[in-house]
Amino acid sequence: MKIAIAQLNYHIGNFEGNVSKMLEAIRWAEAQEADLICFSELATCGYPPRDFLEFDDFITQCEAAIDRLKEASNQIAVVVGSPSRNPVVEGKDLYNSVYFLYENEIKFVQHKTLLPTYDVFDEYRYFEPATEWGTYEFKGVRFSLTVCEDIWNVGNDNPLYTICPLDEMQKDSPACILNVSASPFNYDHAESRIHVCKANIARYNIPMFYVNHVGAQTELIFDGGSLVMSPNGDIFEELPYFEESMKVFDLEKVQNATQSVEQPKDKILEIHDAIVLGIKDYFGKLGFTKAVVGLSGGIDSAVTTALAARALGPENVRVLLMPSQFSSDHSVNDAVALCENFGVHYDIIAIKDVYDAFMDKLSPVFGDLPFNVTEENIQARTRGTLLMAISNKFGNILLNTSNKSEAAVGYGTLYGDMAGGLSVIGDVYKTDVFELARFINKDGELIPVNSITKPPSAELRPNQKDSDSLPEYDILDKILFHYIEEQQGPKEIIAMGYDDVLVKRILRLVNINEFKRHQTAPVLRVSSKAFGMGRRMPIVGKYLS
Amino acid sequence: MKIAIAQLNYHIGNFEGNVSKMLEAIRWAEAQEADLICFSELATCGYPPRDFLEFDDFITQCEAAIDRLKEASNQIAVVVGSPSRNPVVEGKDLYNSVYFLYENEIKFVQHKTLLPTYDVFDEYRYFEPATEWGTYEFKGVRFSLTVCEDIWNVGNDNPLYTICPLDEMQKDSPACILNVSASPFNYDHAESRIHVCKANIARYNIPMFYVNHVGAQTELIFDGGSLVMSPNGDIFEELPYFEESMKVFDLEKVQNATQSVEQPKDKILEIHDAIVLGIKDYFGKLGFTKAVVGLSGGIDSAVTTALAARALGPENVRVLLMPSQFSSDHSVNDAVALCENFGVHYDIIAIKDVYDAFMDKLSPVFGDLPFNVTEENIQARTRGTLLMAISNKFGNILLNTSNKSEAAVGYGTLYGDMAGGLSVIGDVYKTDVFELARFINKDGELIPVNSITKPPSAELRPNQKDSDSLPEYDILDKILFHYIEEQQGPKEIIAMGYDDVLVKRILRLVNINEFKRHQTAPVLRVSSKAFGMGRRMPIVGKYLS
Repeated sequence: MKIAIAQLNYHIGNFEGNVSKMLEAIRWAEAQEADLICFSELATCGYPPRDFLEFDDFITQCEAAIDRLKEASNQIAVVVGSPSRNPVVEGKDLYNSVYFLYENEIKFVQHKTLLPTYDVFDEYRYFEPATEWGTYEFKGVRFSLTVCEDIWNVGNDNPLYTICPLDEMQKDSPACILNVSASPFNYDHAESRIHVCKANIARYNIPMFYVNHVGAQTELIFDGGSLVMSPNGDIFEELPYFEESMKVFDLEKVQNATQSVEQPKDKILEIHDAIVLGIKDYFGKLGFTKAVVGLSGGIDSAVTTALAARALGPENVRVLLMPSQFSSDHSVNDAVALCENFGVHYDIIAIKDVYDAFMDKLSPVFGDLPFNVTEENIQARTRGTLLMAISNKFGNILLNTSNKSEAAVGYGTLYGDMAGGLSVIGDVYKTDVFELARFINKDGELIPVNSITKPPSAELRPNQKDSDSLPEYDILDKILFHYIEEQQGPKEIIAMGYDDVLVKRILRLVNINEFKRHQTAPVLRVSSKAFGMGRRMPIVGKYLS
Repeated sequence: MKIAIAQLNYHIGNFEGNVSKMLEAIRWAEAQEADLICFSELATCGYPPRDFLEFDDFITQCEAAIDRLKEASNQIAVVVGSPSRNPVVEGKDLYNSVYFLYENEIKFVQHKTLLPTYDVFDEYRYFEPATEWGTYEFKGVRFSLTVCEDIWNVGNDNPLYTICPLDEMQKDSPACILNVSASPFNYDHAESRIHVCKANIARYNIPMFYVNHVGAQTELIFDGGSLVMSPNGDIFEELPYFEESMKVFDLEKVQNATQSVEQPKDKILEIHDAIVLGIKDYFGKLGFTKAVVGLSGGIDSAVTTALAARALGPENVRVLLMPSQFSSDHSVNDAVALCENFGVHYDIIAIKDVYDAFMDKLSPVFGDLPFNVTEENIQARTRGTLLMAISNKFGNILLNTSNKSEAAVGYGTLYGDMAGGLSVIGDVYKTDVFELARFINKDGELIPVNSITKPPSAELRPNQKDSDSLPEYDILDKILFHYIEEQQGPKEIIAMGYDDVLVKRILRLVNINEFKRHQTAPVLRVSSKAFGMGRRMPIVGKYLS
């Protein structure tokens, strides 16, 4: 038997686009004489459809998509994920299902059992879990059909769950596992995915075809990396990361494989490629082509501009340099050099006159109150307004340049440098931004070395440096990592040897700045815990604040 | 037996504050010779604690709070909601539990069965549902202890759920139901709550004490309205809305009651009082006292200022009038009259000079491109920056003045009039904003009648009116209500008789403006479906857009 897997880039709610793409893949697989083609989880509607699932019309369109795929299944079996209605009144209205289509019929449907409801996932908000499990025999091979998380509780060793769906299916002695997935990227995820696939194979000793999404849906980036596993636990094939891919496999060869292939994994390379895809799809799926970035001469805006130029093409990126009286000369020079290296258009607008106009109007109200963060914020908001003016006039989406370290401690101005339609490096700690810059420069100096080596500064008052008010980034980022990614409390972090006062101050800063992060752009997620939909914190909460 | 109920205003994560408040209530109840005092759901930590629940240290503090309450339970039984740890490895780490404390011991714990995971609720993200049900006998009375949603599936008639916890407890023949709740307000909720309590009494024919939270936690407002139900289905007592309240009841009197009391319900009055409490608690719980509002002379900012003055006191509200060349004279006059009527401080800053400074800097970049939405947005962002300058310099939180109709269709400028720390009327449709204004004026003209009667306009270009680009609000708001609150799709709404083209245009506007709402302040929730945490929509989605 020949099995095709299709790792495709879907678009949420774009039924026409998604179905056309799958129909084309079916024709391709037929031409390759495949007996079966397997797509991904909720491929008809894209993942995550979120509250669109609560609209009856949306589900009707999912059903219509299945009908169209069914019409194409005369010669070839089609395995595809889509929502299905729960016919029973009790319980949630929907199941998250995988369909087996063949001979223009729905031959078999298996519902998802394990519904991730943590971090960025809300599946129990919409779906009822399966309580019945079956298998389906096709051309002499009995298949277990599973949906994503269903294979993540191998032998019930995942403390989140109480059921192992594949154990339930063993009564039928299946010969092959198909898994339709929508498993979002983080820089540790490819390894976890391989680990869990191997654990399944070790338990069941049959081949597995694991088919993931690729592409970004706002903040969530899907890296692909679909897997074909041989029954001996070797990786027969791992599809590429961050691109669409289709391939046909001879089941007998997978059964009797001696090969084991695996792509190299590199954290910074993966983050780089993930963000480039994240930018590309955010623009493409919204129907935009052009970006604008505010370039300061510092490393964050330099890396953001570089990633944008790679995602959209340098001709689609324009930058604005907006020096103030506090900007150093080398900042402007570094910014200009970067634009020339990447070939992106730049304009320079000095902000002093606008800033002075603001201060002139405010001075009767402010009286002789001293210069403080207010005036710093006016500079940042003047820049934000100029950038949004470019965005509005020319149709360029403003890219936000905040990094995860400063977003964490609230080191940024709402409606100023925190403005933008998409946060590009908001899930990348400052220490990793430096790594990204070095990675971008690996074949030559594209980002001026001075932007990388000079001490970080917001340049909002004379001789300001980040380290005036924050600890060095290598300490700060470690404390933040323990608190945010590892969810350690103050006692645990202090017990690791960090300074008591510093830890409490940092954790307090993270908590009291929740109100700022609430109002920021979606953040391209590259870690296991990003700010945004996967981290839900009270604003008025008093804990650790 | 004498039973006290305490409808209190908790603060998320403020263990010291919450426990002190409960200890004081216990002393008060003891002085009233109560045998038992009943608090609310998750009263130790406040509701909703959200991802704080994922921190081990946070749960340890919840347990310490239970210990302190236990120490106070020597003479009086204390019934209180708090998280508890799931001792079994499989399943979620926590239960949402109600404790029965007496004689300095934990006498009984019942876990919550029905975990709301829809709209603003994420309980299955954190909690494992109960699978065992018991009751507890105290001084000869056998109690069923339930947590909030547990009573919302009476006889299994709620399609969301498959279990009815009180049915499971009937084997013990309980004589009284206690329910600890955290059930957030919307303007239909008091009626639903009474309806569901009556349905429970009709099924079980025993008295019930239902104890709700009161107070606001960022966007969620809890209205109290705790209930004591007699076994004949009459309301023996309904505690007040929007204020703390404690009362002691003689169980025998409740058993044999002939009285039936119920507060009058009025949508606009309830919205008014809810918002006033929402503002008050947002400031109080964050440790702020003062607000700033941008006042245009229009109805939205007038109503927002009025509500802020009532919540914080007029001495704590300052407003900024920021006329442009497009502002009509009467707008400034109306705004000044409002300030004088309410006694709030105002400053006037004309924005023309700052606007001109922006345009002067941008003109080399813009060339001779025509005036469009860009220049409108620059006006709005100049105002946003001035308001944030006042906020930063004087420590006043900026209140956002957008209404639900304009937030829905994206009729507002990000970082401009969409700025602010809290959206006051962002869950109130424009037609209800008019009702609120009339309600505020019921005893005399506080909001100038001209602000209410003139055609709504953003005044960002000459002779602009909202109705130039939007349908009349009475049509718009109805279409929005069907789509947002009732989750009807385009086909259903058009079938009601609305214009086909108009419906599709409005729904498209709602969907393509998701990116704007993503970046706005938390919205005080007064309806059954507010923008924010309870409505989770994809940004790059293509559905109806």
